[in-house]
Formats: sequence, C-alpha cells, structure tokens
Amino acid sequence: MSPFTGSTPRTETWRHLRLTRQDGVMTVTLDRPDKLNALTFGAYADLRDLLAELSRERSVRALVLAGEGRGFCSGGDVEEIIGATLALDTAELLDFNRMTGQVVRAVRECPFPVVAAVHGVAAGAGAVLALAADFRIADPSARFSFLFTRVGLSGGDMGAAYLLPRVVGLGHATRLLMLGEPVRAAEAERIGLISELTDAGGAGERAAALARHLADGPALAYAQTKALLTAELDMPLAAAVEMDASTQALLMNSADYAEFHAAFTGRRDAHWQGR
Amino acid sequence: MSPFTGSTPRTETWRHLRLTRQDGVMTVTLDRPDKLNALTFGAYADLRDLLAELSRERSVRALVLAGEGRGFCSGGDVEEIIGATLALDTAELLDFNRMTGQVVRAVRECPFPVVAAVHGVAAGAGAVLALAADFRIADPSARFSFLFTRVGLSGGDMGAAYLLPRVVGLGHATRLLMLGEPVRAAEAERIGLISELTDAGGAGERAAALARHLADGPALAYAQTKALLTAELDMPLAAAVEMDASTQALLMNSADYAEFHAAFTGRRDAHWQGR
Amino acid sequence: MSPFTGSTPRTETWRHLRLTRQDGVMTVTLDRPDKLNALTFGAYADLRDLLAELSRERSVRALVLAGEGRGFCSGGDVEEIIGATLALDTAELLDFNRMTGQVVRAVRECPFPVVAAVHGVAAGAGAVLALAADFRIADPSARFSFLFTRVGLSGGDMGAAYLLPRVVGLGHATRLLMLGEPVRAAEAERIGLISELTDAGGAGERAAALARHLADGPALAYAQTKALLTAELDMPLAAAVEMDASTQALLMNSADYAEFHAAFTGRRDAHWQGR
Repeated sequence: MSPFTGSTPRTETWRHLRLTRQDGVMTVTLDRPDKLNALTFGAYADLRDLLAELSRERSVRALVLAGEGRGFCSGGDVEEIIGATLALDTAELLDFNRMTGQVVRAVRECPFPVVAAVHGVAAGAGAVLALAADFRIADPSARFSFLFTRVGLSGGDMGAAYLLPRVVGLGHATRLLMLGEPVRAAEAERIGLISELTDAGGAGERAAALARHLADGPALAYAQTKALLTAELDMPLAAAVEMDASTQALLMNSADYAEFHAAFTGRRDAHWQGR
Repeated sequence: MSPFTGSTPRTETWRHLRLTRQDGVMTVTLDRPDKLNALTFGAYADLRDLLAELSRERSVRALVLAGEGRGFCSGGDVEEIIGATLALDTAELLDFNRMTGQVVRAVRECPFPVVAAVHGVAAGAGAVLALAADFRIADPSARFSFLFTRVGLSGGDMGAAYLLPRVVGLGHATRLLMLGEPVRAAEAERIGLISELTDAGGAGERAAALARHLADGPALAYAQTKALLTAELDMPLAAAVEMDASTQALLMNSADYAEFHAAFTGRRDAHWQGR
Repeated sequence: MSPFTGSTPRTETWRHLRLTRQDGVMTVTLDRPDKLNALTFGAYADLRDLLAELSRERSVRALVLAGEGRGFCSGGDVEEIIGATLALDTAELLDFNRMTGQVVRAVRECPFPVVAAVHGVAAGAGAVLALAADFRIADPSARFSFLFTRVGLSGGDMGAAYLLPRVVGLGHATRLLMLGEPVRAAEAERIGLISELTDAGGAGERAAALARHLADGPALAYAQTKALLTAELDMPLAAAVEMDASTQALLMNSADYAEFHAAFTGRRDAHWQGR
C-alpha cells in the first residue's frame, strides 16, 4: 500500500460493480446480465472512482474487466442513459460526458495493466471501455460495435476518435466509428483490434491467467511501460527518447533489475518484487 | 442551405470536373478518360474551390469521388503539370504545391463524408486524393501507386507523409512512399489502405450506396465524427476526451438524438434530419 | 562529399563495427557472432558517432545494418551492459540511456535510408535498432523480442514506446512491449512489423539489392521522403501539408526532377544524380 494516501476513506461497498481481489489481481465484473451489462450513471461513476482509488492505494498490480452473462457490455442503457440524458440541462450533459471520458482516461492512466475479457457484445461505451484497456482478450463470440452514430451521436465518444485510429489505423477507425457496424472476432483479430483470440468461452480464463502473470512479474516495469506507451502517443520522437532514457535510468536502480541479474548469473528464476 | 453565406456567388460551371447531385449526394467525377483522368492545374483548383463552396453552403451531406474510364486518376499530368512546373519560378512552385495540399486539407476538413470509388490506377496525386477520403471503396482492379520518388520528388506530397503512416502504419508507409511501387487491391485490403473491396466493377455502385446511406442518416453525427477523427489525430488524449465530451453534450441536444429515442421506444424507424 | 565539414577529423577505425562501403552503399555489420552480436558500450557509441559522421559527410546514399552469424542482434550484453550498469551512478545511467536513444534518433534522422537485414534473433536493443530502420527485410528465421520487461526494465527503451505503436498500432505494441514475447516472421509480416519477408537466408542479399536501388536512384527525393515521414509523425495536418508544399517546391528545382522529364519525353532511362 502506498504511503501517499490522505484523509479520503476507502469505499466500503461498490454498489454498481462486482469486485473480487486475489493477491494483487482485481477482477471488476459488470454484473447486470439481464440488461447485457448496460452501463448506468452509477456504473460509470464507480469505474471512475474505483480506478482513482486503486491508483492511489497501489494495492493492485493488474486488473481484469469482464462482463457477466451473455456478453461483455452493451453500452449505455437506452432508458437509464439515453432517456435520462434527454432530461438533462447543458451543464449536466457536459458533466455526464466528462465523467465517461474520465473513465477512459483512468483506464489509460492507472499504474497497472488492464485486461478486458470480451465475449459476446461489446457495444457503444462497452466497446470503448475494451478499447481503452491494455489487452483485449476475446473469444470467438466477441462482437465490437462503436454504434454511437446509430443513436444520432458522434462516433468520437469517450476518446474513441483518439484511440481507435491509433489501434487499427485511420481507415478502419473511420469505417467503424462512422457506420457503427459490428466487428466480429475474426475481423477484430485481422485489423489489430484485439490482443488475443481464444477458444470458445476461453476469454475469462485467459484474461485471468494474463493478469496473474502480470501481477506476479516486474510490476514496476509493466507500469512504466504502460505509462510510456500512453504518454508517447502524444510526444515527439526527441522527447519520447529522452523520457525513455530517464525512465530506464530510474529502473536501473530498481530492485527488480538487480534481481534479474542475480537470478540470471545464479541460474535461478527471478523473484520479482515490483519495486 | 446554410444562412452563413455572404456575397460570394456560387460557381455556375465547374469546367474541370463533372458533377452530379441527387438529394444530398454529390458525385464528382474526374472526366478525362483519354488521359486516365490526369490532373491539371484547373482540376486541382476546382477541387479546392468546390469543396470550399460545398462546405459553406451545407447543401451536400455526402460526396463520391470517382474517375471516368479505365481508372480512378493517374495523378499529375506529365506535360500539363510536370512540364509546366519546370517553367515556374519559386513563388509559383510554392503556390502550386500549396494548392494541391489545400485540396487534401479540404477533403479532410469538409463537413461531410467523402467516399472514393477506386478502380484501376490511383497514382501520385490520385492516390493521395483517395487516401484523404474517409472511405476508399475499391474493386479488384484498383492499384495505388505513390510514385512521387519515381519522378524525382518527395513521397511526402499533399500530406501523404502525414496521412499514410496514420492509415497503414509507418513501416508500410515508408515502403510505399519511398519506392513508389504499386499496391494492388489484395495488399491494400491486407494493410488497411482500403475500407472495402468489392466484386469486379462494383466500386462505383457500392460507393454510391454508401453515400446514399450516409446522406439519409444522422448527417450531423457523421460530420462531427469526421471532424473529431481529423482533429484528434493531432491532439493529446486529455484534450481529445474533453473535445468528445463537449461534442457529445452538444449532440445530445440535437433533434436526431431525441428522434432516435422516440423511434426506439415507439418501435419504429428513425427519421433522421441531420440536425 | 559535403562542403559543410569543419575541423573534426574522420574516424580512421571503427573498432566496434565492421564496415564495408561500395559506391554510396555502406554496410554496417554487428560482428560478435559468438555473442549473437550483443551490443556493448562501444558498439552503441560507434553507431551514434558513425551515423553522425556519415550525416555530415554526405558520402553515403543508403545504409544496410546486418548481423554476422546466427542472428541479427541479441541486444545489450548481460554482463557488459546489464552487469556494468549495476555499477553506474545516476548520472552515468542517464548518459548510457541517452546514448542508446541517440542511436535511434540518428537512425531516424540521418539523411539516407537505413535497411535492416534481419535473420534470427533481433532482441531488446537489437529489436529497437531494426524498428528504427526505414526498411526491415527479414527472412523466415527472424524473431523480434522487445524483452525489456523480462529483465525488469521498461518496454519503452530507445524510443520503442514511441515507434512501435506507430508501426503496428497501439494494441500489438502494448502486447509486445509489456510481455516481451518473441514475434516470429509470419506474425511480423501480418502486423506490419517488417517491410518484406524473403526466402530462407535471403535477407542480406535482398537488403543489399534494395540499398543499391536506393543509392542509384533519386537520393535527394528519398532523403526528403524519409525526413518528412519522420517529422510529420509529430506534426498536425496543416503544418504537414505546408511542409510538403515547400519541400516539393524545393525539389521541383532539383536536377533529378528536370532529368525525369527529359528522360520521359526522350523515351530513355533517367540518370539520377541525387541532387
């Protein structure tokens, strides 16, 4: 646990998410299977606040994001989100959309890898949540739909117009965000939208194994790799090279780097501490 | 039509392009089939001015760019462009190259989707025009060649060194711009250079159908999606997320968003107005 | 040779690299086959200094980077780099990591194309060296491993967290840099990590032929294409289009552009001078 926590108490109960925690791995399950895990105001707020809390605490070294039931997440609920936003005033609309964007920023900026385990539908905000993760482990039932234009909104929602071209290129991103057509697992693999395609029903198990591997490994090295990948999308080459140099100089003073060398020369496995 | 037009008259006759217009869809045909639709000073100028005029007027909701005859566009004409530029002075050379770049910026920045229908040759400036479009619908005869170095010029022409790495990645982009070798339809599909590969001879019909679909849909949502995709290539994540939030808050006040909800709850099709 | 050289003498002997030069093509061979061409402090320094010297002199029009023996380059030597860095102080660590980053910047910024001929292992810094090249010609034995996290370091080393997402997209880049798993030739081709896959054992010969083609061609056009590709990754669209315009106006005054036109109209091959 980080010493850099203040008066803010930990949240005792996360009412809109189901959480399990095991030795450095947090699994966050969207758990409204009767609604295909449609998101609500509360679910967005909990995702934003949970990631902020975990980032402060430093108790988690990898996080799995999954959906209960037939799919990953069908996005914003038609009644609880779309219907409700029709009654909001301008300032509230901005607050809502900033909140959803803050969830994506939190996923990109939290100091641990996020692994999305995707089966079935990942639609709208659900597709963007998966897109923001570091890894997308999908099974053959996975179906990504950036369907914002289908409800009359911009395909650039929650950073999708920033992230998607950087993952699959501008051509595919334009097609997916403009048309909102579903991308099935085979196409998702072909265009680089997913990290790994598993056997049927295997996404959850594989995502858990990957998160375990990451949590048991050199967690500081993983955290900095993620931080640099996120930051250097927005930096010129010269600055990126300088940032890499100072990061690497920092990590060359880390316990894990010395441990690698000791393990290698001692012909034994390394015991990573993540520091 | 937009109320934001001033004294500038509409152009009565576009002498260097063939235009047809049908209920919100403009089709722009490069029409010099005996020269494989090679571009001339006049064709560049007309493309620049037409896109500016259409962007002011707001009478068009989707645009198709196509070529008459055996191919899409063979690029700058060897005599009318290359020969002529050899006689230009430095200021004129800069003006010419700024004009061609303005065409690409206009394609990227106009407030409606542009669909390139590509068959046969898309070479040099023709390849960049197609690259700048939002959609590239190609048939199996399509052949893209960024052949600038083959005439002794830089592969970075009209924004190609900016756009191509963002569409197909830096590795492929370097290969294509440096060597100027033709990319056939199958490779173009594999590397993400085209949006859709049609049956033989099908690019024009499919591009027209897509433009019709876009013009009949939530045109404001499409326009904003395009604007965000274009702008967010040049923005950091935090700014992009903020831009998405304010755009989405704006569109949540639009007629089309309310219409989607009314149609969905009323179990009927939405009637999009594009506002 | 450039007139813009001063008092700095040419380096008589490059002790840590094997160099051959033939009519504008320089071949740089990493030549410690008993160590799989593991890099040392001296090899990094020589790469940095060689590229700076060649960039000043203008005697080289294309460069091949290859490895002697069973593979391309296994990266930093476990003893000579990792062991040694454990004894460095903070300022020295920063100097070391800046030096390695300067090598990558030099590869990206030198005014001639760099062709990496990759067979067997390209690991760690070896993988990033290949990544920084303009072309990666690989044979089926090629195996890229960005294995920095496996030694407890950041995957963002020498600009890898900047370059890799721009070559293969953010999704693949995250997977490769986080996990450090080997990418074999077939996957490297599929995700756009290599420029060309040759027959078994064919990378060196093909890289040499490509470098010869580039050196014999319009070298100034190639150099400017490379410079624009590098620069425009870090520029917004409007600035990139302006940069293309002024570059192209410049090259339209070049000897090679006039030569193309003369050769084309005279129905003969062009004799490129690279100026």
